[in-house]
Parts: sequence; structure tokens; C-alpha cells
Amino acid sequence: MTEFELIERYFNPLIPPAQRGEDCALLDLAPGEELAVSTDAMVAGRHFPEGAAADLVARRALAGSASDLAAMGARPLGCTLALTLPEIDPSWLAQLSRGLARGTSELKLPLLGGDTTRGPLTLTLTVLGALPRGQALRRGGGRPGESVWVSGSLGGAAAALEFPTMAPDEPLQQRYWLPAPRLELGQALRGLATAAIDLSDGLLADLGHLCRASGCGALIDPLRLPLHAQALERLGEDRARALALSGGDDYELCFASGVPAGQIEALGRRLGVALHRIGELVAEPGVSLVGAETPRHTGYQHFGGGREP
Amino acid sequence: MTEFELIERYFNPLIPPAQRGEDCALLDLAPGEELAVSTDAMVAGRHFPEGAAADLVARRALAGSASDLAAMGARPLGCTLALTLPEIDPSWLAQLSRGLARGTSELKLPLLGGDTTRGPLTLTLTVLGALPRGQALRRGGGRPGESVWVSGSLGGAAAALEFPTMAPDEPLQQRYWLPAPRLELGQALRGLATAAIDLSDGLLADLGHLCRASGCGALIDPLRLPLHAQALERLGEDRARALALSGGDDYELCFASGVPAGQIEALGRRLGVALHRIGELVAEPGVSLVGAETPRHTGYQHFGGGREP
Repeated sequence: MTEFELIERYFNPLIPPAQRGEDCALLDLAPGEELAVSTDAMVAGRHFPEGAAADLVARRALAGSASDLAAMGARPLGCTLALTLPEIDPSWLAQLSRGLARGTSELKLPLLGGDTTRGPLTLTLTVLGALPRGQALRRGGGRPGESVWVSGSLGGAAAALEFPTMAPDEPLQQRYWLPAPRLELGQALRGLATAAIDLSDGLLADLGHLCRASGCGALIDPLRLPLHAQALERLGEDRARALALSGGDDYELCFASGVPAGQIEALGRRLGVALHRIGELVAEPGVSLVGAETPRHTGYQHFGGGREP
Repeated sequence: MTEFELIERYFNPLIPPAQRGEDCALLDLAPGEELAVSTDAMVAGRHFPEGAAADLVARRALAGSASDLAAMGARPLGCTLALTLPEIDPSWLAQLSRGLARGTSELKLPLLGGDTTRGPLTLTLTVLGALPRGQALRRGGGRPGESVWVSGSLGGAAAALEFPTMAPDEPLQQRYWLPAPRLELGQALRGLATAAIDLSDGLLADLGHLCRASGCGALIDPLRLPLHAQALERLGEDRARALALSGGDDYELCFASGVPAGQIEALGRRLGVALHRIGELVAEPGVSLVGAETPRHTGYQHFGGGREP
């Protein structure tokens, strides 16, 4: 199979007809909108287990990339995929194509184009989104005294990795394989949140980024963390809480806001997303925990010996 | 060195301050503009020789990606880079960073963000451009009777690969390593060209794409092809002409136009780009050569046994 045949069979059917077969894809923004763009590479054996089902690999990569749009409050426009493949396996490619079709449809993130080459399995996604000019949620807008919130529950994706032989359709495994990027929440938080970040590297690491960008620190109450129910049940409270603090891949949003808690909670009810106030921003730099020494944690590091999922 | 330190040292200085350290980069289009986007992966040993100088690798990858913007008539906005590295070699990375700095500056294509992971050396670039809505040069607008034009000269990049031990600063090698994407020409051709494509896979292959998209064919006069002077001198006329037809990586533009030749030639003089009328579009499908049997050619194929530079 040539590269052209491969693209023709497995990828072109996913691309809107108007975008196919040109040197670039064309996209329109609405008047007053600006563009948001982010690129992430997902490598087999590093960002997801070798031998994983192709449809799950595709859907998880799409969700993780779309989460960067959610963190800025952008609405999704589309994505490009650079795919590196060790071999041409038609059934694997058909499964990948089905996963891409489902993920791009669910996330309203149509495939606009891409490239295929031979090499170790890697999905490099560039996601494009749009948002009203000047209204992006950034990391650096938080101020001491504001509340710190997280969506959903934490630690489930990291807990799933502790059970590598569990079937992927178990609810705990789905927390790792099928994260739900908070695209609707991110857009609804424009004007309400002063700073936001998505949780890909773990709460302590990512909230640390938000604090550094905002020139402040955070004081978090570990007892307020929304632990993942199955992590709690299978691993016990201490481990579930540790994973909620340091485990990555949950793709929830963490944000700061100065508006009354009731207003944020009402937004969560309207969107059907649990929102939890877990602490506040403080003047002193760093992320501290109420009643505990902050565990040493550096977040995900591809180089330098950090955590490997 | 951690991933954060690596990014901090070698890549963040290239990113405009307003774009650093967020989940997405933000970009603004002018009123009435639409966005053009394209993703390309460049793999060592496949798209460029292993062991090549890092600054040349960076500049060539940027130029090749920017050429897709030129082909659509887009003005460059910026790019993202997903970099896969086999190891952390500070002097290599510093050289890559210098090449990126120079290339992004020369092409007015600022680095907006990216990702680094460990693996076989690969540069995956996503380029973003803007153009007046509805005015993109597409592949499918050509009609029989229109003239077919190419810019610059052809076959030089492929000729360079026949001399792998030649110093990279020799003019012939520079044709391969430092192509000049025709960004200014592409923008100037909006409204004059009916169809356009950049020459990455070779004239016969790429003009074939344009013809298929336009629902017609082309009749080319091989004697009108602008042969690369050094390819001619070093390889002789027959080989230089064969490379001009089938060699890739020149990143010139090929376009169709129905306006009088003098008008196109005047545009070339104004921009300082040689523009050559090499034939015309015809009703019969396929690319044919005046006075010769068309050589069998399939263009660059990553899978399936095609040409490997």
C-alpha cells in the first residue's frame, strides 16, 4: 500500500470534502474571534502502553489534545494529525480510523489534514480552536484570595495504570482511555475564572504552573479533593489521595475565581459537571497543603527520570 | 536535563513572550481573512540524511512546510514544532535552536509552541497562514487552454543528493538544504493563477495532482524546463532534465494561468523571481511531454518503495 492509498482509504473519509487534497486546510473564524493552537505528540510506550487498541489510542490522543483548548476556553475548530507507523496493518489502521472518526465527531474537532511516515508509533496532533478576542483563559490571571476549583474527580487515570491487566471497558480503565475534555466548561468559565489550566501532569504540578504564571501560591485542603470513587475503593484513601494530588492524565480543569462559590456551583449544575472548591490562592509562592507537608513532586518529565505512565 | 529545562533553554527564547507558557498559542487574523493550516513530518534517514547539521535540518524543514502556505497564496502567521529526539545533546540542540531562530525569522513564521519527546529524530511542523477569504490558490481551478508556469529552476535539490559528500555550503547543496519557499509569489498570484501547487514530490507528480484536481491534463515541453545550472554542469543535460521532471524537494511553485504571458513575466520581474511558461493545460487527462514518452513516475512514496532522498 502506498502512502497515497493509505491516506485515501483510512484518513480522507474523515476529512470534510472541501478540505481534502489541498496543500493546506482552510478554516474560518467568526468576526471578533481569535485562534488558539496547540501541538502534542503521543508516543507508544511513553504516553500510552505499547499494544493498546488503536481506537482507544486515537480517542485518548484527541481528548488529551482537545483539553488544551478547554483550558483556554476555546471552542474546537479542527485538528491535523501527523501519524508515524511502524508497519501497515490494515485491521489496526481501520480500527484507528474508526477511533478517529468517533473522537473527532464527539469532540466536534474534524480532521483537517495530516501526514503519515514510517517509524515508531506516534500520534502528533495539532488542535485549532476559536474564542472571542481577548477572552482566553490564561494561566497568569490568578490573584491571592481567589478560590481554587477543580472539575470532576482526580486520580482515576493514574489509578487505572496500576491495573494494567484490567479490561479496557472497566469504568476505571475508561477514566484513563476515554477522558472527557471539559470543552463546554472552559468556554463557560470565560469571564468567571481569572486563570485556568488543564490537569495533564497532575494537580500539584499543573497548579504549580498556574501559580508561577500568576505570581502567587496556593493552599490546598487535601480533604476537599474529589477522589475518584473506584481509585478509593480499590486502592484505599491514602493512595487515592496521593494519586489525586500527583497522578496525571485526568484532563480535568483547575481554575481560580473570585466570584461567589454559589455562582460557580450553579454553573456546574447547569453543565452537569461537579465543581469542587479545593483551596485558595495565597501570596506565598508554591503549592502548600493544609495540615501536611507537600510531597515532593515534579510532574511528568519525558526526559530526566520522571513518571512514565 | 528535564523536558522543562530543555524547552526553557532552547525553544522558549524563540517564542514571542505573549505566547509562552500557555496551553495554546493565540493568533489573530485580520478582518476578512481565513486561516490556512498544514502539518508535515520530517524524519531523519527518510526525509533528510542522518547526521545532518541541526541548523540545516531546522531551516529546511521550516522552508518545506512554509512552501505549503506559498502554494495556497497565504501569508505566514506562525508554526508549532513537535520535536522527537533520540538523546539530549546540548551542542546539537543549540545548533537546532539557532537554525529555528534564523529560519522562523527569515520566513516571518514565528514559533508559537510545541512539544518534545524522546525517539527517532523527527521534526513535525504545523504551519499557519492567513489569506483573504475565498481567495486561496487551489489545485482544482485550472482549465484547458491555460498556460502552465513554474518558478525558479528545477532539479537542483535532487541533483544535490547525487553528491552526498559535497560540502553543504556549496551552491548545489544549498539548493537542497536551503530552499526558498515562494511565499511572496504565492500571495501575488492570487487572482492571477487559477490553480497552484508547490513542487515537493517533483514536477510530473505534483503537476499530476493539479491536473487531477482540475479535471484535465497538461502538455509540457521538456525543452522549456528551467534546468538548474549546476545540475546541468555536473550531470549533463539529459540527467538534469530528468531530475527537473521527476526530482523532488525544489519547493518552487507550479501554477496555471489564463492571463497574457507578459503579465506573468512582469510579475516575476517585479518580485525578482524567474517565471517560466513550460506548457499548457489540455483536456486529455495525464501529464504528457512534447516529443517524448512520459517517463513512468509515481512521486515520493513513504510506503511502497518510492524514491528515498
